[in-house]
Amino acid sequence: MPLRLDSAQSDFEPRFSDLLGAKRESSKDVNDTVASIISDVRARGDAAVAELTNRFDRADVTPSTLAFSADEIAEAAAQVPDHVRAALQTAHDRIKAHHQKQKPEDHIYTDTLGVTLGSRWTAVDAVGIYVPGGLASYPSSVLMNAVPAHVAGVSRIAMVVPTPNGEINPAILAAAQIAGITEIYRIGGAQAVAALAYGTKGIARVDKITGPGNAYVAAAKRQVFGQVGIDMIAGPSEVLVIADSSANPAWVAADLIAQAEHGAGAQSILVTTDTTLADSVAAEVDRQLALLPKQTIAREGWEEFGAIITVSSLEEAAELANRIASEHVEIATDDPQALVPKIRHAGALFLGHHTPEAIGDYVGGSNHVLPTARSARFASGLGVLDFMKRTSLLGCTPSSLAALAEPAVTIAGVEDLDGHGRSISIRLNR
Amino acid sequence: MPLRLDSAQSDFEPRFSDLLGAKRESSKDVNDTVASIISDVRARGDAAVAELTNRFDRADVTPSTLAFSADEIAEAAAQVPDHVRAALQTAHDRIKAHHQKQKPEDHIYTDTLGVTLGSRWTAVDAVGIYVPGGLASYPSSVLMNAVPAHVAGVSRIAMVVPTPNGEINPAILAAAQIAGITEIYRIGGAQAVAALAYGTKGIARVDKITGPGNAYVAAAKRQVFGQVGIDMIAGPSEVLVIADSSANPAWVAADLIAQAEHGAGAQSILVTTDTTLADSVAAEVDRQLALLPKQTIAREGWEEFGAIITVSSLEEAAELANRIASEHVEIATDDPQALVPKIRHAGALFLGHHTPEAIGDYVGGSNHVLPTARSARFASGLGVLDFMKRTSLLGCTPSSLAALAEPAVTIAGVEDLDGHGRSISIRLNR
Repeated sequence: MPLRLDSAQSDFEPRFSDLLGAKRESSKDVNDTVASIISDVRARGDAAVAELTNRFDRADVTPSTLAFSADEIAEAAAQVPDHVRAALQTAHDRIKAHHQKQKPEDHIYTDTLGVTLGSRWTAVDAVGIYVPGGLASYPSSVLMNAVPAHVAGVSRIAMVVPTPNGEINPAILAAAQIAGITEIYRIGGAQAVAALAYGTKGIARVDKITGPGNAYVAAAKRQVFGQVGIDMIAGPSEVLVIADSSANPAWVAADLIAQAEHGAGAQSILVTTDTTLADSVAAEVDRQLALLPKQTIAREGWEEFGAIITVSSLEEAAELANRIASEHVEIATDDPQALVPKIRHAGALFLGHHTPEAIGDYVGGSNHVLPTARSARFASGLGVLDFMKRTSLLGCTPSSLAALAEPAVTIAGVEDLDGHGRSISIRLNR
Repeated sequence: MPLRLDSAQSDFEPRFSDLLGAKRESSKDVNDTVASIISDVRARGDAAVAELTNRFDRADVTPSTLAFSADEIAEAAAQVPDHVRAALQTAHDRIKAHHQKQKPEDHIYTDTLGVTLGSRWTAVDAVGIYVPGGLASYPSSVLMNAVPAHVAGVSRIAMVVPTPNGEINPAILAAAQIAGITEIYRIGGAQAVAALAYGTKGIARVDKITGPGNAYVAAAKRQVFGQVGIDMIAGPSEVLVIADSSANPAWVAADLIAQAEHGAGAQSILVTTDTTLADSVAAEVDRQLALLPKQTIAREGWEEFGAIITVSSLEEAAELANRIASEHVEIATDDPQALVPKIRHAGALFLGHHTPEAIGDYVGGSNHVLPTARSARFASGLGVLDFMKRTSLLGCTPSSLAALAEPAVTIAGVEDLDGHGRSISIRLNR
């Protein structure tokens, strides 16, 4: 049974805090292992990458076969049935159309003193995309990382994907083909992150690495941060469904199950104003789980991490949602827009009864790489801005410099930086 | 003597690569020390923070005196002379005016299928600002961190500033007062970062930590990333001046010196098309250094990390600037705008002969917290967006869900996530 809470219970606060604080990932410390993998790749390059790949992925690669050849990509992509290819193309086109609206505009202006100020956006030159292989092998994630990078104007995208036992889901390579990615390496783990961050003879270094991975990948991204940019440290996926009596219990249950089937600490929470709905959703989850291919994984996740919380109002639901700061928040009410302004912390909002979270995973057009583990308090989902950076511009005329000189020289003095002050005063007409 | 390079020399490429790769910071591994400080603060809270503060900062605080009282802030701020206060106010007002133009707009629209898509921006609730104390004690940095947070709509700003030997630059507290910060702790180092990230009895946890610090602060920020957001890992400051024969050698020299006086690995590079200018700038640096209060620090920095590079054209200068990806780039030519589009990687651009970098440090209005150590390849300076996050919105109607169902269910099938597909198909009219 998942956790059942009622906000009217006297012990609600400590129990809700426990739910918020519960760890859903093993916190095995892999930092030292990852540090030695990174050093090894920096020291020995492709030979280290190949050796580590063969050891961890039970693969059989050499420095010269780390990259997929154009023929290998084409052959694998050709195995993908037409309707799958068409579905990936639809997803690609919708993701592209939405992300094109995220492109920022430069803004340069002159203020009343005559100072030119502004922001100019430019693309990152080279990006590395980490795509998990093996258990969780998602062609949709290829699109969700590559399309915003392309829209941003990134000129080189290098993709890495581990191939455990030498195997790969051909749909991954089909998605890469649709996204126009031609540089793909059959590597993963900390060794792939190290190769992308520092470069090897065969793999040119990139400027930023995005995409989710396991604990080794997460630790490696943390360690190379600074040498390259990274997107975020991804944790287990999660959904929060806010529902009132207008919700369909079978639909809500299906959405909770969809999240739970990810396993690996994935969490599904229902917050509802309707006790009857709470009961019927619980029953529906049981009924639908029995029919699911991945019922063992989904049931374990639901029972270990799932929760049903009853509250007295939708306002209270929104308050809890802000404290949970979930990756995905569904608003299963007849008037979802009414609740939107009250939910400040969420990776993505799914509006109304006809918007299951899964539609956003694939073809909605918005990005499915979203902040997990309560990081929606401070982080955004992946988007075009993640592949661009802003340069500020400042330009003074002789008169605007003269107008600003006194306060600037004064502050330089307070900061004991006379050279700063002199670089200003030397330009003044005396 | 600083390094002298000419792009026409046959050994230019390896020598330039060495310059790019040169380490300017000691890479003392403080990770283990920092990890144990963080554990200690998590376990023992304010008692640990006070003990560590007394040990590392030679201070004399208790858990109940970690915070500056309102009276202490007011008294310190009152010691600051009027002209300094006015200068800080001018800086504040100009920074605020510029950053208000960075506020992002929500964008919500409905596409041709009837799908509602959009992005909504909200502020981070609580931010921790790290302000260095001691050697590099900069009231301007208080403004550069606090003002964008306020403009973003952050409701709580907690500031930490170490007070070595119990001393603080009163201008730091005056700047905080001008910026409207009332919650200030006399703590620093990894213990301050840990307290902000995890919270103690006396210091509520924040959602994001910004601001530069020493190696311990940088390592702590890296380790708490995920628990909270962080801005960037700050490295030594740097300037690149691009100059042609129209530049004034004395002004260029003053700007190179202003950067070098930061010490601690700060780097000043001149790239010029004019060999005569190169020589006269070198002579001017020597001449002006002799007059500078911090001449020892500045001279050491200039001789150890400085460089003068002669090139054949401004286009070539821009190419080198992109490879250096400097924090600050000055364009000391008569027509700086002509070169702007060619410089893709820079934290900030300073346009023309009358825009010394130092004006941007204080009163230009743009932010002085900028990406260092070549991270302008992928990172932006601090701004309003750093204190906000984007939530994506997705809403389907029954008909738009029906239109998107087939490709979504197809991709779910390829990803072996039947529960995802079912959460969509269960909603279709049968």
